[in-house]
Amino acid sequence: MSKSAAAELTPSTPIPAKPSGPIVTSARLGNGLDIVVVPDHRAPVVTHMVWYRNGSADDPVGKSGIAHFLEHLMFKGTKDHPAGEFSELIAGLGGQENAFTSTDFTAYFQRVAKEHLHVCMEYEADRMSNLVLTDEVVAPEREVVLEERRMRTDSDPADLLNEAVQAALFTRHPYGSPVIGWQSDIEGLGRTDALAYYDRFYTPENAILVVAGDVEPPAVIDLAHAVYGRIPGRGEAPKRVRVREPDVRAHRLVTLADPKVEQPSYQTVFLVPSYRTAAPGEAEALEVLAHHLGGGQASRLFKTLVIDKRIAVSAGAYYAGTALDDTRLYAYAMPAPGVSLETLDTEIARLIGEVAAHGIEEADLARAKTRLIADAIYAQDSQVALAQWYGASLATGISLADIAAWPERIEAVNAADVVKAAHRLDPRRSVTGFLLPEAAAAGA
Amino acid sequence: MSKSAAAELTPSTPIPAKPSGPIVTSARLGNGLDIVVVPDHRAPVVTHMVWYRNGSADDPVGKSGIAHFLEHLMFKGTKDHPAGEFSELIAGLGGQENAFTSTDFTAYFQRVAKEHLHVCMEYEADRMSNLVLTDEVVAPEREVVLEERRMRTDSDPADLLNEAVQAALFTRHPYGSPVIGWQSDIEGLGRTDALAYYDRFYTPENAILVVAGDVEPPAVIDLAHAVYGRIPGRGEAPKRVRVREPDVRAHRLVTLADPKVEQPSYQTVFLVPSYRTAAPGEAEALEVLAHHLGGGQASRLFKTLVIDKRIAVSAGAYYAGTALDDTRLYAYAMPAPGVSLETLDTEIARLIGEVAAHGIEEADLARAKTRLIADAIYAQDSQVALAQWYGASLATGISLADIAAWPERIEAVNAADVVKAAHRLDPRRSVTGFLLPEAAAAGA
Repeated sequence: MSKSAAAELTPSTPIPAKPSGPIVTSARLGNGLDIVVVPDHRAPVVTHMVWYRNGSADDPVGKSGIAHFLEHLMFKGTKDHPAGEFSELIAGLGGQENAFTSTDFTAYFQRVAKEHLHVCMEYEADRMSNLVLTDEVVAPEREVVLEERRMRTDSDPADLLNEAVQAALFTRHPYGSPVIGWQSDIEGLGRTDALAYYDRFYTPENAILVVAGDVEPPAVIDLAHAVYGRIPGRGEAPKRVRVREPDVRAHRLVTLADPKVEQPSYQTVFLVPSYRTAAPGEAEALEVLAHHLGGGQASRLFKTLVIDKRIAVSAGAYYAGTALDDTRLYAYAMPAPGVSLETLDTEIARLIGEVAAHGIEEADLARAKTRLIADAIYAQDSQVALAQWYGASLATGISLADIAAWPERIEAVNAADVVKAAHRLDPRRSVTGFLLPEAAAAGA
Repeated sequence: MSKSAAAELTPSTPIPAKPSGPIVTSARLGNGLDIVVVPDHRAPVVTHMVWYRNGSADDPVGKSGIAHFLEHLMFKGTKDHPAGEFSELIAGLGGQENAFTSTDFTAYFQRVAKEHLHVCMEYEADRMSNLVLTDEVVAPEREVVLEERRMRTDSDPADLLNEAVQAALFTRHPYGSPVIGWQSDIEGLGRTDALAYYDRFYTPENAILVVAGDVEPPAVIDLAHAVYGRIPGRGEAPKRVRVREPDVRAHRLVTLADPKVEQPSYQTVFLVPSYRTAAPGEAEALEVLAHHLGGGQASRLFKTLVIDKRIAVSAGAYYAGTALDDTRLYAYAMPAPGVSLETLDTEIARLIGEVAAHGIEEADLARAKTRLIADAIYAQDSQVALAQWYGASLATGISLADIAAWPERIEAVNAADVVKAAHRLDPRRSVTGFLLPEAAAAGA
């Protein structure tokens, strides 16, 4: 895969855990590698993914961007296979490939005709332990990443604002740093950093192999044993060390005004527990609440702001629950012409306050739950999305049993749970972002 | 000294470098200890200070508060002198003592009749290398610090807001963490952390001895040589490792509304270079600008907001230039009854914009410079303040030559420099804080 196509799964992409679905087989090799096989016999293809349990939130202090940088460097070749060979082979087989870095994980995948699964395994296993990094490769790739940052972030006011909002919400925790890294940190990343990081995290104990497709689990596990089983284990999985987020209790409004902004936009982000950090039932209630508030055009935000009051052209909310540490619940809207962001802010706060004060109708609750579960089932229609659910869930501490029980746990959410969740949306633990055309800059 | 009297020098206390003054003698012992002697013969007393070049910004990641915690623990006794003995001795001699932790340094001082200087040296040298820390001492002291935090910060909305403002301005740099530490970090501090920190930073190479008073420099240096010279050097000074602040470009408004707030208040803080990080002349121009804007009742902010428009009951500005890394320039005001903080914000932004757009009158420039230098001379009247200038300056990378030349450098600031400094006050690199009574909470 060419480096420019290396995709990031941004922290804001919600990955709901998978509801009832195919029978999944799991195994663990002697070297610690976890294997999950998800049969899907609709077409003679297979999706092969390796997930590493390290993302940008595991970047060492002052080395933000190293996880993402290493994702780029993983395409730079090994002792036996020079850079580009793997990608050309996959392309030659008519396959697809990609890689992405998120806050909590890094993943590599290929989708090929099922008879080529062993090729993916051979090459992926090879670069798990035989990556070759020279200064000739590392230095130019750092420039590629810096250029990627300039293109995506530094020239895009919306992305700059998102960075500042995350940095304000997570005052110390590494979720406050962008996945791609801060420019000043990226500039300092070198071969030694990359090698140290690779040695620390690219180990079988830290990896999860997810294979979804037209395959039989025993055969996949045998093949994985033969190929990945050759990699020596390190004895234990690497430790993830992260700073705890202090309990900052003041609302933060981040404003960015720029001549490039044509459409103002509003977001507000609450610090909330994730599926992993929440008390039992709490994350599910936040999921239902977010869906009720802002999941689609039947949601409370959309109906009120866009349809009834016509003060917004779009509005929504979602819960980024698949995270290792405390995470985010977002509400957002784009104002109709002439409407201020302060008006949207007041209205959205009022709608959230309504749920906290008056609860949620039984019919609305039932609709939110049914729709959430249905959405998850529809999403399984894509083999890649199916494999992603398993990978992202397992890489953030969610078990196969948790995934299987997710629909029941959503079903179990009652109106009182949703009210409790709405009370969790504390303005003192939230950040609001205003994106504005230049002239209206606050304090400017 | 009892632990409860251990004072912190908060990051917001500006410490102007010292203008022309007494002839200062400096020396360095073989073990690396720096010595500065500042003669002051007005009274037969002496101020004895030891400054360590480590403050809260050097706290290891996830261990915020350790610098301050160690300041407490330094009163817990050594092999030869049990806890309390030193403090009782100083009190018995009619002396005073204190200690303080700032973002960039930690300092210990005693003020005694001059004939007792050697006593201070003996005890201070003793605890530089012979501190005894047991779990019996460390665990209860941690509770003392947690209680100190509860009393000072957690129960004081103004202090909570200040913490949140600093955390928003310094999104990654450790100036964004409070000197006392985040509660969750303090709770995790133990004897091992304290010992590791003590071993790393409490070394002669990392210390500066400042003696001000009715003394002769050669005699002081001889005495220091005899007492402090016994401490073995470590070969080199400890490294200060700090995360760089990324270039976040979005204005941040931090709002805290609380029933305990009776008087609303406004502050805005700009990220600016310090004396150490600025280009030549830039810090001096920021100093003059801050004084012109908000130094005293003749300043532009005070005259306009308090006297002419009567929209504020107080207003001012200052530059916290004595810092190792990029630092802060503050403007603040308290509104007159019925005036909103938004009104103050608009007005203060307008006044800063005026300087940037139209410059500064020659008479105003001359007045600001004369007054700045005069203030610094008046402050020398206190022997302790005098010693503090030297200690704080030297501990943040300012040399004795820099200190001596400070008045000339301030004199050299011209109107164009001040305009350039005003342009540095970029709203995109600033944070505004609103402290409000409960009902007016933003987004609540």
